[in-house]
Amino acid sequence: MKKVNIGLLGLGNIGTGTYKTLEMNHDLIAARSGLDLAITKILEIDTERERDITVVPEQFTQDASVIFEDPDISIVIELLGGIEPATSFMLEAMRRGKHVVTANKAAVAANYDALTTCAKENKVFFRYEASVGGGIPILNALTSVLQANDFMEVLGIVNGTTNYILTKMTDEGLPYGEVLKDAQAKGFAEADPTADVEGIDVANKLTILMALTFGNYVHPNDIPREGITKITMDDIAAAKARGNKIKLIARAAKTESGIEYSVGPMELPESHPLAGVNDEFNAIFVKGNAVDDLMFYGKGAGPLPTGSAVMGDVLSIAKHLK
Amino acid sequence: MKKVNIGLLGLGNIGTGTYKTLEMNHDLIAARSGLDLAITKILEIDTERERDITVVPEQFTQDASVIFEDPDISIVIELLGGIEPATSFMLEAMRRGKHVVTANKAAVAANYDALTTCAKENKVFFRYEASVGGGIPILNALTSVLQANDFMEVLGIVNGTTNYILTKMTDEGLPYGEVLKDAQAKGFAEADPTADVEGIDVANKLTILMALTFGNYVHPNDIPREGITKITMDDIAAAKARGNKIKLIARAAKTESGIEYSVGPMELPESHPLAGVNDEFNAIFVKGNAVDDLMFYGKGAGPLPTGSAVMGDVLSIAKHLK
Repeated sequence: MKKVNIGLLGLGNIGTGTYKTLEMNHDLIAARSGLDLAITKILEIDTERERDITVVPEQFTQDASVIFEDPDISIVIELLGGIEPATSFMLEAMRRGKHVVTANKAAVAANYDALTTCAKENKVFFRYEASVGGGIPILNALTSVLQANDFMEVLGIVNGTTNYILTKMTDEGLPYGEVLKDAQAKGFAEADPTADVEGIDVANKLTILMALTFGNYVHPNDIPREGITKITMDDIAAAKARGNKIKLIARAAKTESGIEYSVGPMELPESHPLAGVNDEFNAIFVKGNAVDDLMFYGKGAGPLPTGSAVMGDVLSIAKHLK
Repeated sequence: MKKVNIGLLGLGNIGTGTYKTLEMNHDLIAARSGLDLAITKILEIDTERERDITVVPEQFTQDASVIFEDPDISIVIELLGGIEPATSFMLEAMRRGKHVVTANKAAVAANYDALTTCAKENKVFFRYEASVGGGIPILNALTSVLQANDFMEVLGIVNGTTNYILTKMTDEGLPYGEVLKDAQAKGFAEADPTADVEGIDVANKLTILMALTFGNYVHPNDIPREGITKITMDDIAAAKARGNKIKLIARAAKTESGIEYSVGPMELPESHPLAGVNDEFNAIFVKGNAVDDLMFYGKGAGPLPTGSAVMGDVLSIAKHLK
C-alpha cells in the first residue's frame, strides 16, 4: 500500500476535526483507495489541549520549515486561518514541491492569483473545497462535472452564524440583538461577530465562487456588501406579508453588461429552494445553461464537516500520487 | 489544442441534448480546458428528424463497429437506453480501448460488475454520472470529494414523473388517475408508465447509489419495491394531518445487521430537506459520518440537464488524455 505523509499547519477546532476524520475513517479510506494516509507532523504551539484524538508529542513542531523540508511529506494542509502567515506558508510549501489543501477562505480570497499561479508554476495541486460551504462539495462540482456549462447565476447562503440569527428572528420573532447574544452564549457566534454579521466572511466566499464560475477574480473588498445588523423585526414581518423570507445572500449573475455581484440581505419567495435553508445550514444555488437549476445543501461549518472536505481534497490529490 | 473525437450511440432526445450541450458550449469548454471536443460519428437510424443541431449526413452510421474501429475516436457515449444492445456495445467499446460514458441506468444497474470489471481490465474510464439524478452531480461527489466519509444513509427522490404526480396529488388535491392522464398529455409521463410508477426506474438508481456509497451491489430485481399506484387521496390527507408529505423514496441505510434497502412511498416530515422537493425535480440526501447531512437538488431528467452530466463525464476523461 502506498503511504502518503501529510503535514498539518494548525491543530485548532478545524485541524482537530480534520485529524479526527482521518483517524476514524483511515482503514475505510485505505480499503477504498489503496492509500495509507498519515498526518506525520503538526505545526502547533498548544500541545497540551485535550482533543479526543491520538497524537504523540513527536508529531508537534513549532517551526513550519521542519514540515516544508521533510522530503517524506508530499501534502501540506493549512488550517491556521487568517491571511498571514497562512498565505506565505502555502506559497513556501508549493515552492518546496508540496501539494497544498486549505480551508482558509480569507487567504484564498485575498491572494487567489498568487496562490493559483504559484501552484501552476511549481506543478503542484492546490485545493480549497472547505473554504466555501464547509462540507458541501460545491467547488469540486463547479470545476469538474459542471464544466460543460456556461454559468448564468450563483446564489449562496454561505455563513451559518448569520443564517442561524435570521432563522431565529423569522421563526421565533426575536430581535437581532437578543438572538446574537443567545448565539454567542451557545458558541454559534464569536465574541467579536463583525466578520460574520457584516458580510465580510460571505464576501470572501463570493470571491472564490465567482473565480470558479465566471473566471472573474474580484477582491472581497471590492464587492458591494451589506450585513444583517440593520434588519428589524418590521423588515422580517413585511417580507413575510409578501410571502418572502430574508436571507443573507452572496450573489453573482451574468448580465448583458457583465457580471453583477453583491453581498447583502435579499428577500426570497418561500418557494425558492434557498428559502427553506434554515439554522446553521448552508446552501449554494447555481444555474447553468445546460444543467439549469442546481442546489447543494449541507453543514457549512463545524470540525467534522470541514474535515470531510479537507480530507476529500487530500485524498483526490493522493490518488494522483499513486 | 488537443483534439478529442467522440462516438455517440443514439441520437434520440438525450443524445440530441448532449450534442446540443457540446455545440452551444464548445468554445467555452475549449477555453477552459484546452480541449477541442467533437462528436465525429453517430450511430442512429433516424437521420431525417428535425433536431435543432448541426449534423451532416457523413456523421451518421448504422453500424456500431464503424465507431469501435475508428482509431481517432477515444471516447464512446452510449445513449441508446435499455439493457441490450447497450451493454454489449459498451463492453465492445471498452475492449477496443475506448473510454465509455453513459446515462443508461437500466444497463449500469443490471450489469454493474461486468461493466466496471471490463473497464478495469482494459484500463479505460467508465463513467455514468447522468444515470442517477440527471444533471445533479451526485455520483462524482460520492466517488471523489466525499470519499473520506463512512456513509450512513442515502435517500433519493430520483424519478421526476412520480414526483410530479405526487406533488399534484398533494398540492391540487387531484386523484392519481387524473394526474397521470394529465402528465401523459403533457409528455411528463410515458404512454406505458409502468417503469416509473411501479418504482422500477427508481430501483435501478438505488442499485447504483448503493454500489457507490456502501460498495454493495444488489440487483434491482432484488430490491424490495413498491410504486405509487395504490396511493389514495386519503393516504395523502392522513400524512398531511400528521405534518408529513408522501414521496417515492429510494433508501439505503447502514444498520447493525447490515445494509437495509427499499424503494417505496415514504412519509417525510415537512421539515425534512427532501419534503420541499416538488414537481419534476430530483434530490439526493446523503449522511456521512464526517460531513453529516448533505442534499443535492436539481433537474433529474431532460435533454440539456442530462447532456450537462454526460459532457461533464466526457470532459473529465478528456482532461486525462491531455
